[in-house]
Amino acid sequence: MSVTAPRGFRAAGVNAGLKPSGARDVAVVINDGPARSAAAVFTRNRVKAAPVLWSQQVAEGGRARAVILNAGSANACTGPSGFADTHTTAEHVGAALSDSPGEVLVCSTGLIGERIDMPALLSGADAAIAAAGRDGGLDAADAIRTTDTVAKISFRRGEDYTVGGMAKGAGMLAPALATMLSVITTDADLTPEQCDRLLRRAVGRTFDRVDSDGCLSTNDTVALLASGASGAVADEAEFERLLTGVCDDLARQLVADAEGASKTIAVEAIGAADEDDALAAARAVARSNLFKCAMHGEDPNWGRVLAAVGTTDAAFEPDGVNVAINGVWVCRRGSVGDDRSKVDLRPRDVTVTVDLSAGNAAATVRTTDLTADYVHENSAYST
Amino acid sequence: MSVTAPRGFRAAGVNAGLKPSGARDVAVVINDGPARSAAAVFTRNRVKAAPVLWSQQVAEGGRARAVILNAGSANACTGPSGFADTHTTAEHVGAALSDSPGEVLVCSTGLIGERIDMPALLSGADAAIAAAGRDGGLDAADAIRTTDTVAKISFRRGEDYTVGGMAKGAGMLAPALATMLSVITTDADLTPEQCDRLLRRAVGRTFDRVDSDGCLSTNDTVALLASGASGAVADEAEFERLLTGVCDDLARQLVADAEGASKTIAVEAIGAADEDDALAAARAVARSNLFKCAMHGEDPNWGRVLAAVGTTDAAFEPDGVNVAINGVWVCRRGSVGDDRSKVDLRPRDVTVTVDLSAGNAAATVRTTDLTADYVHENSAYST
Repeated sequence: MSVTAPRGFRAAGVNAGLKPSGARDVAVVINDGPARSAAAVFTRNRVKAAPVLWSQQVAEGGRARAVILNAGSANACTGPSGFADTHTTAEHVGAALSDSPGEVLVCSTGLIGERIDMPALLSGADAAIAAAGRDGGLDAADAIRTTDTVAKISFRRGEDYTVGGMAKGAGMLAPALATMLSVITTDADLTPEQCDRLLRRAVGRTFDRVDSDGCLSTNDTVALLASGASGAVADEAEFERLLTGVCDDLARQLVADAEGASKTIAVEAIGAADEDDALAAARAVARSNLFKCAMHGEDPNWGRVLAAVGTTDAAFEPDGVNVAINGVWVCRRGSVGDDRSKVDLRPRDVTVTVDLSAGNAAATVRTTDLTADYVHENSAYST
Repeated sequence: MSVTAPRGFRAAGVNAGLKPSGARDVAVVINDGPARSAAAVFTRNRVKAAPVLWSQQVAEGGRARAVILNAGSANACTGPSGFADTHTTAEHVGAALSDSPGEVLVCSTGLIGERIDMPALLSGADAAIAAAGRDGGLDAADAIRTTDTVAKISFRRGEDYTVGGMAKGAGMLAPALATMLSVITTDADLTPEQCDRLLRRAVGRTFDRVDSDGCLSTNDTVALLASGASGAVADEAEFERLLTGVCDDLARQLVADAEGASKTIAVEAIGAADEDDALAAARAVARSNLFKCAMHGEDPNWGRVLAAVGTTDAAFEPDGVNVAINGVWVCRRGSVGDDRSKVDLRPRDVTVTVDLSAGNAAATVRTTDLTADYVHENSAYST
């Protein structure tokens, strides 16, 4: 299912030898139409990997025939040679599909600063294209994993059409997107402009509100491909709801599988003057290493929540802020509230609510705790 | 020595029972004049502890007779009652010195969100004032420690006068100041305006460029007290050099003793268009959890340095950035540079140099690695 849940798409994931483990590492998603509207959003990091620089140009055209993805190498910080490698990859896939390389999106994830093994990647691309089928969605999702422990897939069915998707990403999830790649497909009939507008809106409310470690990757890409194979012209509001549902589901799966995490934390800011303020407050808490350590230690340390909110420009009065941890209002009006011993922090899922008492807007940022396992995984990553 | 190195100052550190460990926890620094010019800079966190709110008012007056400091409780997020406690403390110390409470600075450090044990604090203040002497500088520095493993003191002698200081702070060191308290003394003759201007400049180049974990405390205070006891009217340039020397020395001691750290890292940004850009780039690297984990793992992962710089607005071209780790230029022009196996990351001190190739400005931010020990210390802090 996943990207092949909607009609008009084939996919595959194969082992091309890019991962030392010998696991699947090259995936392809092919749009057989009849339409091929597409859009994509990319990392806001100014240091962009070669495949991002390439795919930005493809996305500007508003059409995509296929997405070729690899794990094992990010092809980032690889200079003009790295860009040439991406270009060659798109040419190769375009030729194999008897189509234009200018409609081939390329996504890479893995180590930064190393050239990609091109012979392996190109033969992997051939194998993936040959294997691509209606049942290849799960293999494709499997092939793009790096430190992800599980493949991430989702789909939502509307009355006449379907939205499906896959994603990978387990660290560096911020402040917008993640070290994440995601391909979303639909058989609804949409214009490229609709794809672009609706994807940006959905991503802004989902992937952009995931923040595992405050680090922003060089490769983040979320692509939406619309085949029109259902023949259904989508009602925009309905489509946005389904698309946001898939993105939100995938974003939750990313946080739940974040590197080394032992807690999955939703930081809700409520009572904000506007949504930007709510987001700023929630994000500041989600990024505080001291707060994240406290959650790991199951310590309802609301002082660290307040200290984090205090670094923002959001509208609030310090003596007007209330904080609840798993439903217990441990901080009222900026000071000691209900008995902190009533807070049960043993479950994996934690909800922290910050009431700014400044309005009616709200936003939620999803994060994880900071653990010794996170340190271990990320100390040893490239060795 | 430390705060009692300059003439005109007495100090003491005593055990008042605020720390469960039974160690010294109340300190006093008394300025016997003849002058009592003073200035202070405070945390930029909008959630400010009661002693910060009080001391801001004292500092506005430009004069201080004494500083009373305690460890064990931050008196932060304690509401109007907490502010009344600080007020009472200043009244008590002012009365004991037959002086105005409006010239008593109050500093607190320790747990947030708990009322301070006032009877213990006040009897500790009495004991400290009674014990205060010319040889009390080290005891005072010892009394303000929390998770600091060593007391931090420094002094610099000019031709006619001296600058001395003490500091505490071991985590939450950012982005400006730290969970840090520092008292600097001098027997030079300075106006309150000179104190304020020169202290801000020195702090901006030293304490403000220490960033252990990106977290900003509610209590940070750096105070400068000038007794004029040397009779020397300080040459401003010379005084600024000595003051900056003391602040820099103390700031280095803070980083070297940061919670759980196994590496002390100087991130130098060079070749920047201006100093703000240099600072932004260096700070972004110093705050990247992934970079800090890599340093812990002794992995010269320059890709994480580039990814951090790429999140800033500093002027640079991604393919113009060079990165050296301990002197080896592992990244040249945004891509692979010299052999990374030549980097020796075994020493505790690490220098990372980022050349933005955009101008001639430079700045250094000091940080530490991210370790499992940091996680352990901060998971268990309030339990």
